[in-house]
Amino acid sequence: MSQDPFQSLSQIREILSQLPNPDQEAVVGALNRNGQLTKPPGALGRLEDLAIWYAGWRGDHRPVIRAPQVLVFAGNHGVAARGVSAFPPEVTVQMVANFQAGGAAVNQLAKCFGATFMVVPLDLDRPTQDFTQGPAMSEAEICAAFSAGWQGVDPDADLLITGEMGIGNTTSAAAIALALFGGTARDWTGRGTGVEGAALEAKAQVVADGLAANADLLADPLQVLQALGGREIAAMAGAILRARSLCIPVILDGFICCAAAAVLEKARPGALDHCVAGHRSAEQAHQRLLDALHKPALLSLGMRLGEGSGAALAIGVLQGAVACHSGMATFAEAGVAGG
Amino acid sequence: MSQDPFQSLSQIREILSQLPNPDQEAVVGALNRNGQLTKPPGALGRLEDLAIWYAGWRGDHRPVIRAPQVLVFAGNHGVAARGVSAFPPEVTVQMVANFQAGGAAVNQLAKCFGATFMVVPLDLDRPTQDFTQGPAMSEAEICAAFSAGWQGVDPDADLLITGEMGIGNTTSAAAIALALFGGTARDWTGRGTGVEGAALEAKAQVVADGLAANADLLADPLQVLQALGGREIAAMAGAILRARSLCIPVILDGFICCAAAAVLEKARPGALDHCVAGHRSAEQAHQRLLDALHKPALLSLGMRLGEGSGAALAIGVLQGAVACHSGMATFAEAGVAGG
Repeated sequence: MSQDPFQSLSQIREILSQLPNPDQEAVVGALNRNGQLTKPPGALGRLEDLAIWYAGWRGDHRPVIRAPQVLVFAGNHGVAARGVSAFPPEVTVQMVANFQAGGAAVNQLAKCFGATFMVVPLDLDRPTQDFTQGPAMSEAEICAAFSAGWQGVDPDADLLITGEMGIGNTTSAAAIALALFGGTARDWTGRGTGVEGAALEAKAQVVADGLAANADLLADPLQVLQALGGREIAAMAGAILRARSLCIPVILDGFICCAAAAVLEKARPGALDHCVAGHRSAEQAHQRLLDALHKPALLSLGMRLGEGSGAALAIGVLQGAVACHSGMATFAEAGVAGG
Repeated sequence: MSQDPFQSLSQIREILSQLPNPDQEAVVGALNRNGQLTKPPGALGRLEDLAIWYAGWRGDHRPVIRAPQVLVFAGNHGVAARGVSAFPPEVTVQMVANFQAGGAAVNQLAKCFGATFMVVPLDLDRPTQDFTQGPAMSEAEICAAFSAGWQGVDPDADLLITGEMGIGNTTSAAAIALALFGGTARDWTGRGTGVEGAALEAKAQVVADGLAANADLLADPLQVLQALGGREIAAMAGAILRARSLCIPVILDGFICCAAAAVLEKARPGALDHCVAGHRSAEQAHQRLLDALHKPALLSLGMRLGEGSGAALAIGVLQGAVACHSGMATFAEAGVAGG
């Protein structure tokens, strides 16, 4: 454990206080280039914004995406024992084996878009504590999980997708979102992998109970994560923060990934400036969370799988945007009137 | 001209009367496979529907996309002389050279997603007639353009994207949509590449004038295309119909491509069952047209470039969908509970 970069939440806070920003020279260069490309102004819509955003973070006005990384974290949740999921907790470890064998959806998507893939199982035989009885993790536990996320990021990657697997983790994400943004437990509680009717009401009650049991920890976003999170959620937050420190752009996935990201944004507004929302999940509360983060989704295809799958699919959109920006001819180069 | 497959509209009608349908055995096989993959039922949302649809048309319950084709047609419009575009007609031929040199947006997108690319210029030095004075094309002219589209499709392709370039062609597409679906000229007239204010009102008037000048031809969808279309629009319709005859799925692009496709759908309901809508364009009337065709768009990113660019970007979504469907492990293969 002594090799972990973080042993205390205050060390995470220190990193959050000194975040790098995009390269303004690259932004200006990319804006200039965009205005000269052979198309009517604005005709590529959000692709133009995406390319300029990506250029800024990479410090290159004409960037190329060569090395996307898909990084999935898996954790088990004490709260799963309260019947909040349609699947048993054993599925987490089974799905980790499926990821390792290349059989899951996200494996196919990573391959499809030329991304590397890695799954990091986090103490699967040691679920977090049931957060309706007190904090899900100790400070040492959240720091270890956060460190695993931080260390999972490949410094040579030029795009990060972070995803998760963890039976029960929409419950944890709902509790985090409720603690960070307010509202009612029902506002943030959705069907997950298939919970309906009375079970859905019971799930919302578990979320509410989680907040009641940890009332003294909810003023601080990192303590919210410690109290209500799971290891895979803390790890995603760590990976997203590491990406920021390395100026690696991130495509956020669905509800659980965005709950992890929201912790950083609440702890330090602007902490997600290097992130775009890859998709809007079918999970009920995801749009509410995207709104709270001011992140419009790139895709909205009714996906609700997690694993980073929605974000991995959005790699293609970003690749297309950057390919247009960096590969198109200018009006002058092409001899086209109207530039 | 004697080599053209079509010399009369009645020959096109004959093809429309004998369209092939998807392979039901492949559909059932794909549905069964989808139900066994390692994910909660429905968790991949529209990706699941896309993969099953694609499987049916390819006659393979576990298909692979190996050979997407992007096929762009260019034409010039007599109606462009009426000031309906922000760009001069010379831009059409200049952009064809840009496509041929690989410098346009669609070139980058085709390369990004592994598609072949071809541009077919159609008599650029011979614009169609100004449709406010009578039919844009003779029957021989529309048949030649339709034939060029038909012949442009690679029979070995397993996915077709068809796009267009033609200064003035949103005006033509608006007139076609109005003739096919009713409403007002203003309902279907949008900004195109940048027409605003009084110029936009004038553009709507040109659309209305076009219908008035061709009132005797508007009862038949193919004659609507002859009266109000452009060569590139007729060619797209020809390519989409050829793709159907070859069971090659099609991703439709924006407003102009959908206007071409709508002619087929109106002439023969169900003629677009092999097509999905790649994106919703920022062109005002595109959503209205998608609604009329009952085609929900895969992407909505504010694009309004034409060239097939929105559809080309959507290749990535379909590739991702098919990769998941055909590459994922089943519950039994992966030893995951819940199958």
